[in-house]
Amino acid sequence: MPAGLFGSIWSSEAVAAELSDEAWVRAMLDVEAALARAGAAAGVVPEDAAEVIAATCRRLADEGGIDPAAVGVEARGQGNPVVPFVRLLTAAVPGDAARHVHRGSTSQDVLDTAVALVVRRATRPLLADLAGLAEACAALAEEHRDTLIAARTIMQQALPTTFGAKAAGWMAAADDAADRLAAAVERLPATVAGAAGTLASLGDAGPAVAAAVAADLGLPESLVPWHTHRAPLVQVGAALGIAAGLAGKTTLDVVLMAQTEVGEVAEGAAGGSSTLPHKRNPSASAAVQAAVRRATPLVGVLLAGMLAEHERAAGAWQAEWETLRDLLDLTGGAVARTREVLEGLQVDAARMRANLDVTGGLLLAESAATALTDRLGRLAAHDLVKKASAEAVRSGRPLGDVLADDEAVVEALGPAGIAEALDPARYVGATGLFIDRALAAHRARQTEEHS
Amino acid sequence: MPAGLFGSIWSSEAVAAELSDEAWVRAMLDVEAALARAGAAAGVVPEDAAEVIAATCRRLADEGGIDPAAVGVEARGQGNPVVPFVRLLTAAVPGDAARHVHRGSTSQDVLDTAVALVVRRATRPLLADLAGLAEACAALAEEHRDTLIAARTIMQQALPTTFGAKAAGWMAAADDAADRLAAAVERLPATVAGAAGTLASLGDAGPAVAAAVAADLGLPESLVPWHTHRAPLVQVGAALGIAAGLAGKTTLDVVLMAQTEVGEVAEGAAGGSSTLPHKRNPSASAAVQAAVRRATPLVGVLLAGMLAEHERAAGAWQAEWETLRDLLDLTGGAVARTREVLEGLQVDAARMRANLDVTGGLLLAESAATALTDRLGRLAAHDLVKKASAEAVRSGRPLGDVLADDEAVVEALGPAGIAEALDPARYVGATGLFIDRALAAHRARQTEEHS
Amino acid sequence: MPAGLFGSIWSSEAVAAELSDEAWVRAMLDVEAALARAGAAAGVVPEDAAEVIAATCRRLADEGGIDPAAVGVEARGQGNPVVPFVRLLTAAVPGDAARHVHRGSTSQDVLDTAVALVVRRATRPLLADLAGLAEACAALAEEHRDTLIAARTIMQQALPTTFGAKAAGWMAAADDAADRLAAAVERLPATVAGAAGTLASLGDAGPAVAAAVAADLGLPESLVPWHTHRAPLVQVGAALGIAAGLAGKTTLDVVLMAQTEVGEVAEGAAGGSSTLPHKRNPSASAAVQAAVRRATPLVGVLLAGMLAEHERAAGAWQAEWETLRDLLDLTGGAVARTREVLEGLQVDAARMRANLDVTGGLLLAESAATALTDRLGRLAAHDLVKKASAEAVRSGRPLGDVLADDEAVVEALGPAGIAEALDPARYVGATGLFIDRALAAHRARQTEEHS
Amino acid sequence: MPAGLFGSIWSSEAVAAELSDEAWVRAMLDVEAALARAGAAAGVVPEDAAEVIAATCRRLADEGGIDPAAVGVEARGQGNPVVPFVRLLTAAVPGDAARHVHRGSTSQDVLDTAVALVVRRATRPLLADLAGLAEACAALAEEHRDTLIAARTIMQQALPTTFGAKAAGWMAAADDAADRLAAAVERLPATVAGAAGTLASLGDAGPAVAAAVAADLGLPESLVPWHTHRAPLVQVGAALGIAAGLAGKTTLDVVLMAQTEVGEVAEGAAGGSSTLPHKRNPSASAAVQAAVRRATPLVGVLLAGMLAEHERAAGAWQAEWETLRDLLDLTGGAVARTREVLEGLQVDAARMRANLDVTGGLLLAESAATALTDRLGRLAAHDLVKKASAEAVRSGRPLGDVLADDEAVVEALGPAGIAEALDPARYVGATGLFIDRALAAHRARQTEEHS
Repeated sequence: MPAGLFGSIWSSEAVAAELSDEAWVRAMLDVEAALARAGAAAGVVPEDAAEVIAATCRRLADEGGIDPAAVGVEARGQGNPVVPFVRLLTAAVPGDAARHVHRGSTSQDVLDTAVALVVRRATRPLLADLAGLAEACAALAEEHRDTLIAARTIMQQALPTTFGAKAAGWMAAADDAADRLAAAVERLPATVAGAAGTLASLGDAGPAVAAAVAADLGLPESLVPWHTHRAPLVQVGAALGIAAGLAGKTTLDVVLMAQTEVGEVAEGAAGGSSTLPHKRNPSASAAVQAAVRRATPLVGVLLAGMLAEHERAAGAWQAEWETLRDLLDLTGGAVARTREVLEGLQVDAARMRANLDVTGGLLLAESAATALTDRLGRLAAHDLVKKASAEAVRSGRPLGDVLADDEAVVEALGPAGIAEALDPARYVGATGLFIDRALAAHRARQTEEHS
Repeated sequence: MPAGLFGSIWSSEAVAAELSDEAWVRAMLDVEAALARAGAAAGVVPEDAAEVIAATCRRLADEGGIDPAAVGVEARGQGNPVVPFVRLLTAAVPGDAARHVHRGSTSQDVLDTAVALVVRRATRPLLADLAGLAEACAALAEEHRDTLIAARTIMQQALPTTFGAKAAGWMAAADDAADRLAAAVERLPATVAGAAGTLASLGDAGPAVAAAVAADLGLPESLVPWHTHRAPLVQVGAALGIAAGLAGKTTLDVVLMAQTEVGEVAEGAAGGSSTLPHKRNPSASAAVQAAVRRATPLVGVLLAGMLAEHERAAGAWQAEWETLRDLLDLTGGAVARTREVLEGLQVDAARMRANLDVTGGLLLAESAATALTDRLGRLAAHDLVKKASAEAVRSGRPLGDVLADDEAVVEALGPAGIAEALDPARYVGATGLFIDRALAAHRARQTEEHS
Repeated sequence: MPAGLFGSIWSSEAVAAELSDEAWVRAMLDVEAALARAGAAAGVVPEDAAEVIAATCRRLADEGGIDPAAVGVEARGQGNPVVPFVRLLTAAVPGDAARHVHRGSTSQDVLDTAVALVVRRATRPLLADLAGLAEACAALAEEHRDTLIAARTIMQQALPTTFGAKAAGWMAAADDAADRLAAAVERLPATVAGAAGTLASLGDAGPAVAAAVAADLGLPESLVPWHTHRAPLVQVGAALGIAAGLAGKTTLDVVLMAQTEVGEVAEGAAGGSSTLPHKRNPSASAAVQAAVRRATPLVGVLLAGMLAEHERAAGAWQAEWETLRDLLDLTGGAVARTREVLEGLQVDAARMRANLDVTGGLLLAESAATALTDRLGRLAAHDLVKKASAEAVRSGRPLGDVLADDEAVVEALGPAGIAEALDPARYVGATGLFIDRALAAHRARQTEEHS
Repeated sequence: MPAGLFGSIWSSEAVAAELSDEAWVRAMLDVEAALARAGAAAGVVPEDAAEVIAATCRRLADEGGIDPAAVGVEARGQGNPVVPFVRLLTAAVPGDAARHVHRGSTSQDVLDTAVALVVRRATRPLLADLAGLAEACAALAEEHRDTLIAARTIMQQALPTTFGAKAAGWMAAADDAADRLAAAVERLPATVAGAAGTLASLGDAGPAVAAAVAADLGLPESLVPWHTHRAPLVQVGAALGIAAGLAGKTTLDVVLMAQTEVGEVAEGAAGGSSTLPHKRNPSASAAVQAAVRRATPLVGVLLAGMLAEHERAAGAWQAEWETLRDLLDLTGGAVARTREVLEGLQVDAARMRANLDVTGGLLLAESAATALTDRLGRLAAHDLVKKASAEAVRSGRPLGDVLADDEAVVEALGPAGIAEALDPARYVGATGLFIDRALAAHRARQTEEHS
């Protein structure tokens, strides 16, 4: 998958490398090798034939000895690439061993198991990028634990919070997405069930061969054939969708904070323009937004594929391969570029603080009311602040000035008390606790992974 | 949700009852009651006020004292129903306690937590129907453990299998879907995070209140506020999509087997027609197909909702409520009707067996080749059968007759051996093992649930 | 469709009224009446029987004489509501005429034709709201033809434009959406094709009956039966999606301009909050965003429904009714609420102008370079401005001040010339022409419609 | 776009050739050439510079002088490929003319106009394949005008129809899809609107340049800039979706008719298998089903892209390019392969006729009742046939035999009359008329196109 004209904008090279036609062929070779070894173990393939087949598979994988395009051309007539692939492999296996290639298996067995391998291999760099993304968030959460910023709800400033809390939210979501993805991927099974899901052509050895292939490749077995029961794949798809969604949510926040009028963050590599010198386009974030918009519906294709006819679907199955490839590619790219954005993020803490003053202290009205409650009672305090806020909105004066004109307020709080009540730093609630809790979970998770 | 003109066709009354406007209001009342109790426990709401609030909530829930339509009309201006709901609740709470209603909470807290409750309540009958569906499959799998039927791949007869294997596949998929759904639902958290996700208005008591609400309602807590980190909900959506997909796959098989030319099963309540007396429309299965087609894209709406702005989304959040309701409703209906279909399924084992003969024994060509391998060697056996099969296709004669004309075959197998090699009952491979394995897992799962 | 707890937030009463169960029953009664009259005209139904049937249909429609819920309950067994509906209608028709009810028709004929009627009736208020929306934009475009505002690309200020140009863009898109929708709706055909699309039960009279029904209801005929060729419906779905998209784009712009830090517009009825007095939530716009998110995937359900089996689909068809209803409902609501937003929009032209200065004149760098080109040549002018812009970014000084320090610039343009070059009002290009062109087309379209 | 491992299975080489990276670069070069010529015509670019630029574009297009991969690598930083593309083009333009490259334009102008060109070029072979598909259907409709086949509704045999009627339905739908697609493509406009949709940098010449570019490329102009008003593209997407849907419906019918138990058609190139010699997999049809499943959701991506922010979207726009490319590719492949299937379709008219007898004449019960109506009255005739049908179902005897046992029937119709009433050939209604009507429209359409 050379990224080409458009793909470079959003893709991850490391993920894409595991999704190339060559990578698929390698996975299919790995499956055939495992199948031969399993056949030998179960006594349906001679030991030496199995060794020859496995060695040939290894050699072909190393040398790129099977040309995907050649397979593809012949696949047109068959409806899937396994038939021509097996023909080419068989032709490459020397001597009598050739007769034992693909023994007992069917096209969907090979492709489903190859899917499990490809998914595992492609999610490895993807999970690494998710971990990197979370780590970048952790650094931001620590550094900006007390950096004030406006919390915005329905796209309106609501109350103060901290940028650290925002970053901790991204981090926790990234760790969560990684956990979900890893769990889903681990459950993707190997498949040896034969042409009709009965394993008939292997006689009594069928179940042993199926178990041995799974063990050989380090994949779980399916309780019953899953040729047309696709929940494991849908679950992987949903987990990829969630990972893409996490990337999308994070970069959406970046795009919004990077707006010219907000100016709180900028992408480190924000694209300048000679004609529009002020522009700092959040290009990477926009690329992520685009990738996520394209990724999400692919989950739906996999889900719709659950409606698979009888013992092998006429369309639903064949739609999976490229859908899954695109979904891994787009999610991999979205996560990788989001990681880049976060690792290079330029944070303007002063601008964050300044934006908190845009409303002239109205953001702290709730805080002022709370401060006055002890002296005036809740209802009176609330009414007083409500009136003062209305006056501030009407006159355009800061809420603090309006409150300072009110004798009852001055008496209750004094000038220092008013300032304190309107200090956003004193009204960020449990953000510190949330950050600490999330960071602790993040660190514990890392320890666990590395132990 | 009265089912009305169309809804009765596909819906489950038991699930729909948990999704009505009244059920949502009840859930919101439960949340406010828990919030009041939690406030009391944390010392921010007087004990007696909390009791009065909780009692009022209980009374209003029992009496249907809050009219959803009235809430709805006022909600139009606010963008969500919580503001008018709280106003009506507050008006109903007697005395001073009214001042403590909704203390420290925000609209999304109440709705998110109500969502968790509604989902739990609506999935209860849904899971019961999934269990019933699986049980109906288990009965079919046991009864038809050895009932022969053609396995069909890409909509062509491929090899023999058993109807029991088919039913065991549906059963295992249903159990799997139930496990996934239950796990996802259990992780849907309670939410008390306040207007900006900081819990600021509750001062130091915030985290304690949040924890107490979760404990009170028997829901997990979120590590950090999840107002705009929606993976838990997406996961529930995906699990519902998988459950709907299972229903869709099963009834698709039913529709295909019920075709006039196939005639292997019929819906117990298949709709006759006075003008078309032969028709046995698989109406319930078609209704399930329709419901699943409508359910699947709703998962996509939830997934797209992950792109939520800042601390509360301007659209993505508001799109969740009815999407989730429709998804639960459609999935609930799809599963319930599929259960009905399976419980009443009329199985025509004779027709299944007869259909195996449509190809004149060609379905067993692989078996014949295997049988001949010992005597003739794999390659020669294979070539011989290939030639005989071609002749059978050309002449329209049964494969058995063509083989009986071949001296080498007769010598190798004898007439009885030929018949044996072409007996589908002897070529169903590991189906029995798969059925037993799946049934054992199904029974173990049931034991676990009831213990 | 009582809007209830959530629906009131986003729905249009006028559109919803045409989508109720009762409205569907009325449409079905209209179809049966037309069918009876057509049968009489073609000589297959006695004249007096047709009159009795038509009169009964009219009476039942006026009196609400057929209870949708009762139809629904029986529909569960049949898979569609037409069978029980016809039974109830037949029971209501007095005397011998009852025998001629539904003559020659099939369930899908009645429902497909009812769909055409329901779509026509529900799009009438929808198109009226689209026209009102466009008119509100026209008024904004005229009033703000010269109101300066920053054009924003990739969410960054790019160059000056006018708010009138923005409004004209919305207007032109609304007129375009209305044209597409009206054209698609007009092509939705009446259907009389009989149980198998052959019209066999009507003998030679079939085509005449089909033509007469279409003529009677003012609907086009289909060239061949379209029971399983659903492009006409998909086209209506796409046009509704486009109308919803237009509403979504417009309110997205409103939400972005209404952000606290931008503050250029506010919804007329923006929801205040007693605790957060500064908040002016764009609640209606957020409701539109939610409705559009839910509407879009429904188009996909209709499109996927093109894969309809044989002569009547087992699922795809049955999925259409409620999908179409929801799509009309959501689009109707989205358009109606967007119209409300635009009609009540509070425009802060001063804030728009002030926001243009956020970049200290950098937005006009291109204009300055152009102004200098005559004197200095394009390349030199460009280099000079580029350097000055970099200095402005570095120092935080306005670009005008930096340029005024440059002797070459002062010599070329003089202080007045510099100011002129940095005046956004002089750099809005063809916006006036675009506005005038769009308004002229809008007015011409109105004239045409009313003539 | 080399089709590779999977792509060959479903893609159309002719369509894919117009979608390659190289084809996109050629389209972009065509746009820049037109822009230069338009600039010259409007007096903002020197005549000779325009000629040099246009010649360079032509040369680079012919020679493949711009490497898409090189563009792609640089595009990563910018978020779109136009910036590096223009840099490479500028470097290739000799002398002073280089200064005039891309004058007045912006990235989205170039890409949007290139999109219009690419869509036009890729739909040309696609429309040719749609025409070929329709023609293949026309031949089937003519040849099989009277070939009897069972009409199937809800997957049950309903009544007789003709295979010609089926083919005519496919044909009419293909012609209709082609008309819709051509109409949508023709409305896709050229775009020159500048960085902010104001054309400011071109001074007064802006509108003239925009008009000249459109005229030069033979594309319509947009009334106002459509950078963030994407209905024209959505309409193209919907039309592609409809074309894909038509291919999907047609091949779904093929798959169903090709089932082993139905056996009415087979793909000409149906894939045999050495181990499963009876299998005639409808591989091409299955590939089309897969392609359509993947194509449909892409329409949704385009539709969701209508929610574009301000004057250029941060994600929605960038998601269009590859979505559109994939949609054209998949639809092109689906249509081309469906054409192949139809052109090579093996029709087994005898099997179609034989399948009509599966229900022992019950399919003609309606016909028998009609035949008896003259003598017995409608109600009595109906009751009699209903009873006889029930007896036929119960006993498994043919309906004709049961009716022949009934004296009233024999008296009314005689043995010949019974046979006639149960002759499916006499009960296909208006199918002949529908076929003739559709063929006439098809021929008229062809004449129009070629005149």
